[in-house]
Amino acid sequence: MYEQPTGGAAFPVPKTMDLHILDHRLRVTSISKNGLVSYTHPLIKLIFLRNRTRCKFFSLTETPENYTVVLDEEGFKELQPSEHLQVESSVWLPLNVVSNGSVSSSSQAVGVTKIAKSVIAPLAQQHVSVFMLSTYQTDFILVREKDLSVVISTLEEEFNIYKEVEGESVPVHCQDVSNGLQKNGKEALQPTVHPVLIPQNQFCVMSLDPDTLPSIATTLIDVLFYSNSPKEDSQLSANQDLDCIQFFSFSLIDGYISLVMDTEAQRRFPADLLFTSSSGELWRMVRIGGQPLGFDECGIVAQISQPLAEGDISAYYISTFSFDHALVPEEDIVSVTDMLHHQRKEAAAS
Amino acid sequence: MYEQPTGGAAFPVPKTMDLHILDHRLRVTSISKNGLVSYTHPLIKLIFLRNRTRCKFFSLTETPENYTVVLDEEGFKELQPSEHLQVESSVWLPLNVVSNGSVSSSSQAVGVTKIAKSVIAPLAQQHVSVFMLSTYQTDFILVREKDLSVVISTLEEEFNIYKEVEGESVPVHCQDVSNGLQKNGKEALQPTVHPVLIPQNQFCVMSLDPDTLPSIATTLIDVLFYSNSPKEDSQLSANQDLDCIQFFSFSLIDGYISLVMDTEAQRRFPADLLFTSSSGELWRMVRIGGQPLGFDECGIVAQISQPLAEGDISAYYISTFSFDHALVPEEDIVSVTDMLHHQRKEAAAS
Repeated sequence: MYEQPTGGAAFPVPKTMDLHILDHRLRVTSISKNGLVSYTHPLIKLIFLRNRTRCKFFSLTETPENYTVVLDEEGFKELQPSEHLQVESSVWLPLNVVSNGSVSSSSQAVGVTKIAKSVIAPLAQQHVSVFMLSTYQTDFILVREKDLSVVISTLEEEFNIYKEVEGESVPVHCQDVSNGLQKNGKEALQPTVHPVLIPQNQFCVMSLDPDTLPSIATTLIDVLFYSNSPKEDSQLSANQDLDCIQFFSFSLIDGYISLVMDTEAQRRFPADLLFTSSSGELWRMVRIGGQPLGFDECGIVAQISQPLAEGDISAYYISTFSFDHALVPEEDIVSVTDMLHHQRKEAAAS
Repeated sequence: MYEQPTGGAAFPVPKTMDLHILDHRLRVTSISKNGLVSYTHPLIKLIFLRNRTRCKFFSLTETPENYTVVLDEEGFKELQPSEHLQVESSVWLPLNVVSNGSVSSSSQAVGVTKIAKSVIAPLAQQHVSVFMLSTYQTDFILVREKDLSVVISTLEEEFNIYKEVEGESVPVHCQDVSNGLQKNGKEALQPTVHPVLIPQNQFCVMSLDPDTLPSIATTLIDVLFYSNSPKEDSQLSANQDLDCIQFFSFSLIDGYISLVMDTEAQRRFPADLLFTSSSGELWRMVRIGGQPLGFDECGIVAQISQPLAEGDISAYYISTFSFDHALVPEEDIVSVTDMLHHQRKEAAAS
């Protein structure tokens, strides 16, 4: 039922994609490695006891630095302030791209690659910081609530934009949003090219029927909350000698579970309960950042996702409190490494 | 192969029972209601992650006052000191009575009733404090390590006494124990008759195959660690209006699991995994003590278990940091109540 616009710019392009601003107000937090013990009680509640909490958006990612917890305001209430908890000061809103069924994309790639040109690059040009959270099911683009008007005005040319309000999708336009057409005013600087780390682990991106979550509860609790206990310290340091990285991500968002883990962690779970989109699909990690990246620099996701899009290479992308992490198919890691090497050389030459 | 003694006292009575001093050195601790959050991490490890701990004796009992945790020294290491943790200063040793197969008891009663005359009463006479812990499988009689010589000299007339040492049962005699025949020297006072509380809940004493513990993990975690969360406060206070008591006990001792819970908690667990000795067997509670009892008063268990033994009424008995709890068959609660009423009247008259 697409109606040809009767006026406006020459050659109007039909909008082929929808962008949904989801009905979650999110906080991005970090729990120190030593502090996890103090937060075991609320985290277990948020992960396993759905009928005890109204939290609908929960993500926990362990990295060698800390635990990044992204959660909605209902979930955030459960985390008592302490020296072990860092909280990014903004409220973040998750965006989600949905292709209109009528249009087939020429790309077969999935993940952040699919939205690199349409969302990530334009937002970077407008100096909007994004915090990416890819899951088994979809890719969430988190933007600061205060940047929403810029986001809408930047993306409404290419997207039908909807705001989810209590289960209803309400169309929004730039003029609906306070602050109107105001754009972020920073200069377009040459972006920093960050050093990358390419650990040796192989990762899988998996899901699980929420009803079977209790069946893996003790294993998941063991992996999430006890994998750093002294017993395993020797093993851990052995891993680090081999350039492996401690990385485990669990999310429970609107009733959907997503897990990202390396093959070593995967072996601890019963094989018949976790599933992945195609059996044996393995991913390698590119960790972006030598020093913690912070939340204000723009264009970090764009810098890696644009060349991936040009190469049509699928990628999951998980931002954490300290670093960003892209996951690319195992068979593409050599070309991605070459590409990043090339990018660094160009940046050094310019 | 019983050999008639060739000398000694007239009418020597053959020893028909064995008493085992188990190879666990126990600590009796209490976690405050508000402090449970801080101890969730170590407690979940001790309950669910057997390959991460060398603890072999663990018991956790929730009462309205606090959580009583009895555990061996390996387990005790996991509990960091804090304002929320109270620790009784002594080391306690668990004793266990085993009937010799050759002798049939005239009593059909089980639990503490069976050992009331042979163990509980003689120890009370010798001013030995006991801390009782009945489980689905057996009844542990905890005595202070420093009282061991008195315990042995008191009980060796009636029992073959063995000390478990690294899986071996080694016979012990009074002279083997340092302090020799020294007895506790306190005066035999008229024991205090403590007030009792008889709540309306019906309890069951259950067990579980340790291999199926992961299947009930989320339910057990919910009941143990989240049953006092604000969500249920209204329900809880409603219960207390009806004279119900919050009481839940879990133990994992030498690989055996025992659970004591009321029928309301029982309904939350899958019916096919927990088992009890005879289906539908329900118990009523007699809580002993108006003020917290402490650990030094002797004869508390004797006071209730002796009349139960005379009436041949089975009873489980669970001591906690604040109060003692006897569980008697539902059908006997009226006669037990009468008996306790009679006891109080006698004490008042004397």
